[in-house]
Amino acid sequence: MSNTIKKIAVIGSTGSIGQQSLDIIKDFPEKFRIVGLAGGKNTSLLVKQISQFQPKLAYSSLKFDLPDKTKFSSMEEIATHPDVDIVIIATSGKTGLAPTLAAIRSGKKIALANKEVLVMAGEIIMSEAKHHQAQILPIDSEHSAIWQCLHGEKNEVARLILTASGGPFHHRSPTQLSKVTVEEALQHPTWKMGRKVTIDSATLLNKGLEAIEAHWLFSISFNRIEIVIHPQSIIHSMVEFADGSLKAQLSAPDMRFPIQYALSYPKRLNNPRLPHINLAQLNSLTFEAIDYSMFPCLQLALDAGKKGGTYPAVLCAADEIAVGLFLKEHIKFPGIADIIASTISLHRGITDPTLDDILTADDWARDTALRLSEKAKLCLKQ
Amino acid sequence: MSNTIKKIAVIGSTGSIGQQSLDIIKDFPEKFRIVGLAGGKNTSLLVKQISQFQPKLAYSSLKFDLPDKTKFSSMEEIATHPDVDIVIIATSGKTGLAPTLAAIRSGKKIALANKEVLVMAGEIIMSEAKHHQAQILPIDSEHSAIWQCLHGEKNEVARLILTASGGPFHHRSPTQLSKVTVEEALQHPTWKMGRKVTIDSATLLNKGLEAIEAHWLFSISFNRIEIVIHPQSIIHSMVEFADGSLKAQLSAPDMRFPIQYALSYPKRLNNPRLPHINLAQLNSLTFEAIDYSMFPCLQLALDAGKKGGTYPAVLCAADEIAVGLFLKEHIKFPGIADIIASTISLHRGITDPTLDDILTADDWARDTALRLSEKAKLCLKQ
Repeated sequence: MSNTIKKIAVIGSTGSIGQQSLDIIKDFPEKFRIVGLAGGKNTSLLVKQISQFQPKLAYSSLKFDLPDKTKFSSMEEIATHPDVDIVIIATSGKTGLAPTLAAIRSGKKIALANKEVLVMAGEIIMSEAKHHQAQILPIDSEHSAIWQCLHGEKNEVARLILTASGGPFHHRSPTQLSKVTVEEALQHPTWKMGRKVTIDSATLLNKGLEAIEAHWLFSISFNRIEIVIHPQSIIHSMVEFADGSLKAQLSAPDMRFPIQYALSYPKRLNNPRLPHINLAQLNSLTFEAIDYSMFPCLQLALDAGKKGGTYPAVLCAADEIAVGLFLKEHIKFPGIADIIASTISLHRGITDPTLDDILTADDWARDTALRLSEKAKLCLKQ
Repeated sequence: MSNTIKKIAVIGSTGSIGQQSLDIIKDFPEKFRIVGLAGGKNTSLLVKQISQFQPKLAYSSLKFDLPDKTKFSSMEEIATHPDVDIVIIATSGKTGLAPTLAAIRSGKKIALANKEVLVMAGEIIMSEAKHHQAQILPIDSEHSAIWQCLHGEKNEVARLILTASGGPFHHRSPTQLSKVTVEEALQHPTWKMGRKVTIDSATLLNKGLEAIEAHWLFSISFNRIEIVIHPQSIIHSMVEFADGSLKAQLSAPDMRFPIQYALSYPKRLNNPRLPHINLAQLNSLTFEAIDYSMFPCLQLALDAGKKGGTYPAVLCAADEIAVGLFLKEHIKFPGIADIIASTISLHRGITDPTLDDILTADDWARDTALRLSEKAKLCLKQ
């Protein structure tokens, strides 16, 4: 396979990760070829992508015109097409669940950027992947870092250390946090990402989701996962081994690094378009312990992860609703944690859930979070 | 071999690395057993070590009493004894050359701490090691870090980045450097090491020797080896791969980490006696570019490495003489670089030297450096 072209489907090609995936694929026409593209509602961008990459298959949730060569197909059809080697899951929320499972069951390699897939259904995903020998290639920068640090190591892992930039509000007081605007929350200090994940980074809920992902991807218990604030986002995560020695992976904060690594793995490709780092110029990499009391969403996520069952799905669904309301300025920033906490407190968890149980919990959590937010909105108006 | 005891010879057991190697071996009596110990002139310590580890074979350059069980043997006899699996070369200077070559030719694993072995005779050592399938396990913290970062990687290396603490005089002016005392030069900010290597760290010549070692150990050209000042000595070195992604190895600055890794490789052993690091407590890892004009010894070493042939041997010999004279307060700190530079400038290098050529160059350089230093002493007295 070393000299053959890897054939790729991108599920979620019009989002931030999808677009950056296509940037990498475009950089190496002799290495990668697009077979299928699935976009969301941004059909004008999807049409451009189709014109550029000429995929066999394409999908959008809205109607749009396709060239003759391209066949309209469902996300699952794209993810399981016999021509496809690697499926990039670049959707967000629960959208990625069905195509991921379909791709796994077809034995594809899954380049996974959609956090919620593992957070909601980690046990099912990992056991199906094992059963069908479908490799999961993480695209999150933290999990890519850990994956790279573990490469070739057969030794016991003492700890995984996830780094967190701390987001834009790392040193704010609770009073200041209550006054945070949407615009401020969307100003991430180091990473350029989609709106939802940028807010999740500001609440640090995102880091809790990543801990849950790491738990599943690397079969590690939560008490061996640590989080440390590292505002420069240069060390993307670390592994501490049994002997107390650590390995870290470093690069400029640019999602094209983990995307390219997942696609080229186990090879690494020289890409002059990616920004290189100069440590002497950077001068300083700093680290701080997290003040969990300032980031209730992070604690909620870790607790949901530890409880397992349907709790992580409820966490994700409530967060999606709450962040959506915050982005529409219907609730204040600290209201995100309040809605999630209240939703989780009302949930009756199911252990060893089926996919249906998980999707039912998701529906329930969305309804509940919305209901709770209506109350919150009333409170705001008073 | 996974459950068998590794049988070890320590050549240079009474020095700093030798003693720390025995600390590690003592920590794991079920993993490691001492077969042979070779010490220098500190016979009282060697006698204690023999009493504790009861080796079959022992050597010292001075006469001393041995217990009945232990047979007096030459360093080469110890390094090649059929019972020995791993030979730790913990000597300094050219002392390690003959036992290392003997051990390599017996197909032993070589845990190499003696920098000069590779610096003086890198080409011979590496080609003999290849021929006899003798693995070289680096014990220097920098090379151990690179070795760990490369473990499992089959990808092209873009750069090796050696970290340097910068030593105690990193921010001194040339005038201040001329007034440096022996006591000050022996105060290394992060590492506890032998006297010679501590002075070599203060001049940064040591880092030049490490670049030459890295060149041989990892078959990498000098233009792909970079050095960056990292005063905290937590990141022990880094590898940048073709994709611009870096891997780093981190631990507390304690030589027992690389010693233990070399001995336990490819396993890692849980050792609660080794200090663990807490990044949030450390708070900051800093990096600075090197001002080569402040560290002439480093540039001399890199130049000698690039020239190759007998030049690195001349560098080592001249440095050993110069550092010895500085420790005896016969020359000033900047005099070390002066003596090395003058010795090298007088040398007529031989390319593709034999071991004899190298040892002849070493003798010549010692004589020359001493002769030059006599002149320097006369100057000092004027």
